[in-house]
Amino acid sequence: MVASCSTSSLSFGAARISSGKSSKKRISSLSSSSSSSSSSSQQRVMMTGRAQQQRVKAMAIADTDAEIDFAKYVKEKNAAIEQALSDSVPTIYPERLHESMRYSLLAGGKRIRPCLAIAACEMVGGKQEVVMPTACALEMIHTMSLIHDDLPMMDNDDFRRGVPTNHKVYGEEMAILAGDALLSHAFEYIARETKGVEAEKILRVIADVGKCVGSEGLVGGQVVDIESEGLAMEGKPVSLETLKYIHAHKTGALLETAVVSGAILGGGTEEDIERLGKYAYDIGLAFQVVDDILDCTATSEELGKTAGKDVAVGKATYPSLLGLEESQRIADELIKSAKEQLSVYDQKKAAPLIGLADYIKNRKN
Amino acid sequence: MVASCSTSSLSFGAARISSGKSSKKRISSLSSSSSSSSSSSQQRVMMTGRAQQQRVKAMAIADTDAEIDFAKYVKEKNAAIEQALSDSVPTIYPERLHESMRYSLLAGGKRIRPCLAIAACEMVGGKQEVVMPTACALEMIHTMSLIHDDLPMMDNDDFRRGVPTNHKVYGEEMAILAGDALLSHAFEYIARETKGVEAEKILRVIADVGKCVGSEGLVGGQVVDIESEGLAMEGKPVSLETLKYIHAHKTGALLETAVVSGAILGGGTEEDIERLGKYAYDIGLAFQVVDDILDCTATSEELGKTAGKDVAVGKATYPSLLGLEESQRIADELIKSAKEQLSVYDQKKAAPLIGLADYIKNRKN
Repeated sequence: MVASCSTSSLSFGAARISSGKSSKKRISSLSSSSSSSSSSSQQRVMMTGRAQQQRVKAMAIADTDAEIDFAKYVKEKNAAIEQALSDSVPTIYPERLHESMRYSLLAGGKRIRPCLAIAACEMVGGKQEVVMPTACALEMIHTMSLIHDDLPMMDNDDFRRGVPTNHKVYGEEMAILAGDALLSHAFEYIARETKGVEAEKILRVIADVGKCVGSEGLVGGQVVDIESEGLAMEGKPVSLETLKYIHAHKTGALLETAVVSGAILGGGTEEDIERLGKYAYDIGLAFQVVDDILDCTATSEELGKTAGKDVAVGKATYPSLLGLEESQRIADELIKSAKEQLSVYDQKKAAPLIGLADYIKNRKN
Repeated sequence: MVASCSTSSLSFGAARISSGKSSKKRISSLSSSSSSSSSSSQQRVMMTGRAQQQRVKAMAIADTDAEIDFAKYVKEKNAAIEQALSDSVPTIYPERLHESMRYSLLAGGKRIRPCLAIAACEMVGGKQEVVMPTACALEMIHTMSLIHDDLPMMDNDDFRRGVPTNHKVYGEEMAILAGDALLSHAFEYIARETKGVEAEKILRVIADVGKCVGSEGLVGGQVVDIESEGLAMEGKPVSLETLKYIHAHKTGALLETAVVSGAILGGGTEEDIERLGKYAYDIGLAFQVVDDILDCTATSEELGKTAGKDVAVGKATYPSLLGLEESQRIADELIKSAKEQLSVYDQKKAAPLIGLADYIKNRKN
């Protein structure tokens, strides 16, 4: 049952990468989407050039119809998301704190969580603007978790998305405080900026987002991950059940709350919300299983970070516990199950979510 | 204008300290107020014995009628607050994370923020239960800020309230994550647990709390404080305006949101909310001015922490900028102004808030 992925000869996926050239042409406008009127925003656009290139590369795998739909959808939404994110944290006093928050918030990234939230909202008949504050809030929370994760006392990373990590630029004290400020601002922003929807629904979203971030969500997953690493170093193997918990919470919870929030705010029925919750759980877990697979099949260049890191530190992954083939089968099953949840909807309206599922399955970084 | 408090012979306040013996007798039941049915809570009660003693000491200054009213009020509310706090973070999986959160959340403290929220709610005619989730949330947020502040990369404190700081017991990674979890749980808790009040009001409270914690509140104040320390070390003096910003934000904001949240959830009118907001701003600033005064007039034993620390590190304080006498005059003015806001209310109903103002003015630690 236990197999180290580094010994496997499987390397599925790599063949799907489009050439950088054609992909850049296909969605070239993505690179100019972080527009903002302020001079510091212009600076940020310059500073995040590499991050934007990475995003373009990430979107360059759209080689199925569904994925093309998703790439188009992302392209269409991207400018609005970047603008909304820039507006959500203006550079006010104390400036250096707000610059630190903006440095990481506007550092590019795939914006999967905002896209998921908007796509779910629109699929059930809602308008983009009702979910945009929540979409921004989810990105603030995701950014907070990255800033805190990168700290020397945590993962001790010097680079993120091709640029120095927050604490390398602003110092450790500022990094921890910028994370705290982004986290509290996220909830304030949902509560204050969500318009045109019943207050009860907004409260439900806040409760759901809070749970998905906290000790029963993202943070809970991180803690079990750290504890499992400690146990692994003592030679105590991590069970598949524990690994599933880590994946479902550390990454899955925030993706899930993105989709569910979109469904709630978009006016979805309880059935819609339940179906989309299942879809999100499946793609969230699939996202992380694919991450495990990529860690031992993709090159560092493809990943934009050190490949084989999990294997090097003896970390439990799906491939290390189940082998590559079984891991890929599970990822395929999860994506299939996720898409089945969408089968009852108008397939045109569901196209972005179907495309995202394919994107997660086939992603190369 | 600039005067070092260490050279002053003023030592107002010390004469007000009651003997430990009589004060312990007066509010002795406080020490058994952290009751909980779970065994880990019982452990906590034992572990926080010193913290409880400190609280008893803190309440021992009730030598005006108003302060006696406040001490009675705190005594009356304390058991309910401690029980609600214990219930708000149960020891579920992952247990060590939840233990870490509970370790700091249930470590005693004066519970001023919950008391303020409940007192404001009741004064405008609301019931305790509608504000209790928010009262707990404010204590979660306060606790988060203490856990993160104590980290080696921040203030590097080994002890808090007489017991080892969170990271000394659970490690730095867990401490930062426990703080993050408490912060997100705070907002989830308000959204999910507040009952019997219109959803719009709960949203207003969440937006207000978020602002008072984030970059325009507590965190903003911390950042300006850190930056000012840096400037002071370069020989650049801190202005009174900046010091006022630091105090009003670092400490005042959370006290203010406690009172305002209580007024909103208790069904106060816009006039009530505005009046109580002003009251809270005044007592919040007074709290910090008194803190500055105590740093250079009280003994370490009285404070329960190192006295003269601000002076030793050359930190700007009210006494260092304005002298002790003027600082005390300002504190007195602020308390007087705070009480004036309460003059339109039934003085019996306003007694806890009046008493709290006196307590802040006369406190010894």
